Amino acid sequence: MAKTNTTEISTEPNGDLDRRSFLRKSLAAGGAVAAASAGATQALAEVNPANLPPNKPIWSQMLGPGVTQSPYGSPSPHEAHVVRRNVGWLTSSTQSSINFTPLQDLHGIITPNGLHFERHHGGVPAINPNEHRLIIHGMVKYPLMFTMEELMRFPSESHIHFIECPANGGMEWKGAQMESVQFTHGMVSCCEWTGVKVSTLLDEVGVDPKGTWVLAEGADGGAMDRSIPMEKMMDDAMICWAQNGERLRPEQGYPIRLLVPGFEGNMNIKWIRRLKVGTAPWMTREETSKYTDLMDDGTARQFTFVQETNSCITYPSAGQQMSHKGFHEITGLAWSGRGKIKQVDVSVDGGRNWRTAKLQEPVMSKCLTRFRIPWQWNGEKAQLQSRAIDETGYVQPTLAQLRKVRGVNSIYHKNSIYTWEIDTNGGIKNVQLG
Amino acid sequence: MAKTNTTEISTEPNGDLDRRSFLRKSLAAGGAVAAASAGATQALAEVNPANLPPNKPIWSQMLGPGVTQSPYGSPSPHEAHVVRRNVGWLTSSTQSSINFTPLQDLHGIITPNGLHFERHHGGVPAINPNEHRLIIHGMVKYPLMFTMEELMRFPSESHIHFIECPANGGMEWKGAQMESVQFTHGMVSCCEWTGVKVSTLLDEVGVDPKGTWVLAEGADGGAMDRSIPMEKMMDDAMICWAQNGERLRPEQGYPIRLLVPGFEGNMNIKWIRRLKVGTAPWMTREETSKYTDLMDDGTARQFTFVQETNSCITYPSAGQQMSHKGFHEITGLAWSGRGKIKQVDVSVDGGRNWRTAKLQEPVMSKCLTRFRIPWQWNGEKAQLQSRAIDETGYVQPTLAQLRKVRGVNSIYHKNSIYTWEIDTNGGIKNVQLG
Repeated sequence: MAKTNTTEISTEPNGDLDRRSFLRKSLAAGGAVAAASAGATQALAEVNPANLPPNKPIWSQMLGPGVTQSPYGSPSPHEAHVVRRNVGWLTSSTQSSINFTPLQDLHGIITPNGLHFERHHGGVPAINPNEHRLIIHGMVKYPLMFTMEELMRFPSESHIHFIECPANGGMEWKGAQMESVQFTHGMVSCCEWTGVKVSTLLDEVGVDPKGTWVLAEGADGGAMDRSIPMEKMMDDAMICWAQNGERLRPEQGYPIRLLVPGFEGNMNIKWIRRLKVGTAPWMTREETSKYTDLMDDGTARQFTFVQETNSCITYPSAGQQMSHKGFHEITGLAWSGRGKIKQVDVSVDGGRNWRTAKLQEPVMSKCLTRFRIPWQWNGEKAQLQSRAIDETGYVQPTLAQLRKVRGVNSIYHKNSIYTWEIDTNGGIKNVQLG
Repeated sequence: MAKTNTTEISTEPNGDLDRRSFLRKSLAAGGAVAAASAGATQALAEVNPANLPPNKPIWSQMLGPGVTQSPYGSPSPHEAHVVRRNVGWLTSSTQSSINFTPLQDLHGIITPNGLHFERHHGGVPAINPNEHRLIIHGMVKYPLMFTMEELMRFPSESHIHFIECPANGGMEWKGAQMESVQFTHGMVSCCEWTGVKVSTLLDEVGVDPKGTWVLAEGADGGAMDRSIPMEKMMDDAMICWAQNGERLRPEQGYPIRLLVPGFEGNMNIKWIRRLKVGTAPWMTREETSKYTDLMDDGTARQFTFVQETNSCITYPSAGQQMSHKGFHEITGLAWSGRGKIKQVDVSVDGGRNWRTAKLQEPVMSKCLTRFRIPWQWNGEKAQLQSRAIDETGYVQPTLAQLRKVRGVNSIYHKNSIYTWEIDTNGGIKNVQLG
């Protein structure tokens, strides 16, 4: 095995490597780093037991448990650290709180159901689906009440969409710096949702042409409710009963939730029990006192429904430790409530220079998009940033650009560019750059 | 609310309804059926408590549990019946057996990780990822041993693919009739897989141009191993560490498995520990005694890698009960190991007449494709069939066509058209038609 010194590779400071040139060099870099650790990468003339590393890897296992012991499977005990996490100081009760998705430990675009972020306003109701009903009433010709069995008879569709709380990143408007991407961006998750289009149900009840707004209300303790424009309801809104193949999880609205793709997470009403058609928004608590954007001049923006273009680097990211100099694949997620992601740029020098990342196909509308870009870390200080652009041409703003327009009073819709700063020891911190 | 008699709708015996015409008629059908049940569909002049059904649905819940009690979530207790299931008589031990995916209860195309089918040849090893190694050796320039940390440094990709055991449906070659689609087709599942391309690793070790086959071997009790053509390995094969976002489940190969998209499930070696490059297949037990197709004349087809075009209707399907006459959406899954599904046809009269179903986008290569088609059941006997066609033009065969070529001795690669027979009481049985 040809040995190449890592420092010889990085002729360009924190520079690029195309994929072909990466390969052989990565081998050398990998070998150099691993030689210092217990289980070293080894060049083996022949594979035989004498060449096994001293810590005796589990090389062949006796018969383990079989198929009947876990009819519904669970992750490996070695992945017990990959869980949703709460921030203790953030809310006064766990019943009205948030559990963040561990984005730093996830791969691809699908969020497994057990790790989908949670945001509750009144606990998780334990609903017997046989007793649940959905009522559609108000300005409709035939007010109707549906059982689950009746709802699930309708023609259905499946779509992969993200859901994001508009407070994602909200703790940082005024300068707080959360320690990991789980807490800066972990209020976004992405699943395949199956259900009936709301337009199908509204056609069924016969909407009065004067009806322009729909109130959606949940069956949780707080009766979470939001007003949604009829136009959105007739476009791509759905009443969903399944996520990632199986029925909704309790904390995601079992047995049914509203899905309004690209709109604020809280509008995707969970445990939905009622849709009411009217001519104006209902000015509920969740669209007056909450979920409005307080501006610098004391006025508040209301009905800012769409989750604008956003992105985050998930590896390397704040709270992680760089294991070695040399090749790293920078990867992350981008999304837009207005459609498809068109481009993601990545900077390793705090936004001075940008390169365009590769987007993993399929790139879908209002869906997480995984991006990846190769990088050679030379061991010096680096500032990693990602900047997403969606198909409408909207470019994710810097924090300074966002604050210029919106001030620092809001706790919602903070979709600005983040910076992960890598120090010379490989430590990674969340820092705020203008 | 205008009431329409269900019988008035079905002017055409078991006929079609396009989506628009479905809507108003479905309302009537729904109302008519529900009126006979406890929780009836009701036309409500106003929604008020007096109009609630007598069984008191949980209409608003007091505060339930909050976010910290289940950092890794689980399905609702009301979905406890949706589990993988074994067939007791099929294998002599649970360590070398099969757990089938409950396709009849799933929606969309993603299989949640807890319900991905399992097929083990020597139990599920409990592997500490820090002690696991992957060796690549044989006809290579630099034989190498990789730790997990080293493997996960490589450039990665994510793809949504199905994995199917070639014995799917195999119990029925000679005429057995399993009671549900869970057991006729439940050895297929579909996830988003993330890992490094095998071609990247083979480039790294420098393959001898004479190397045309690769042995893949697992770290399970039986050291499951298969020979795979170099061409496939350099095409779309991957070493995967994640499924549906999170790290592999133990029963799916934690910490790493091979993915050979479209090839027999058993070739997607789980707990993979070794790749060896050579010039000919190794004639392992799993490609001689097992996983060969015994023909009528006593010879055996060997190395029948590709899972040919297949499909199944998941609703209505064997073992279910039709709840009502009138509108039903027929839905199911189609897949091909050679590429994308191009078309799925559905018959309700045992294959005499066919209509083309709608395919749910995105339709991806070597991936489950969800199809749906509206149907009006008139209460008479019906025989439901689906027939898939892939982008190569391959048409899923009838059982008679398949037996004509392959006889009845094999237990593998039975991808013929199935028939669910609905009787006049709405009972549904798996029957075999020529």
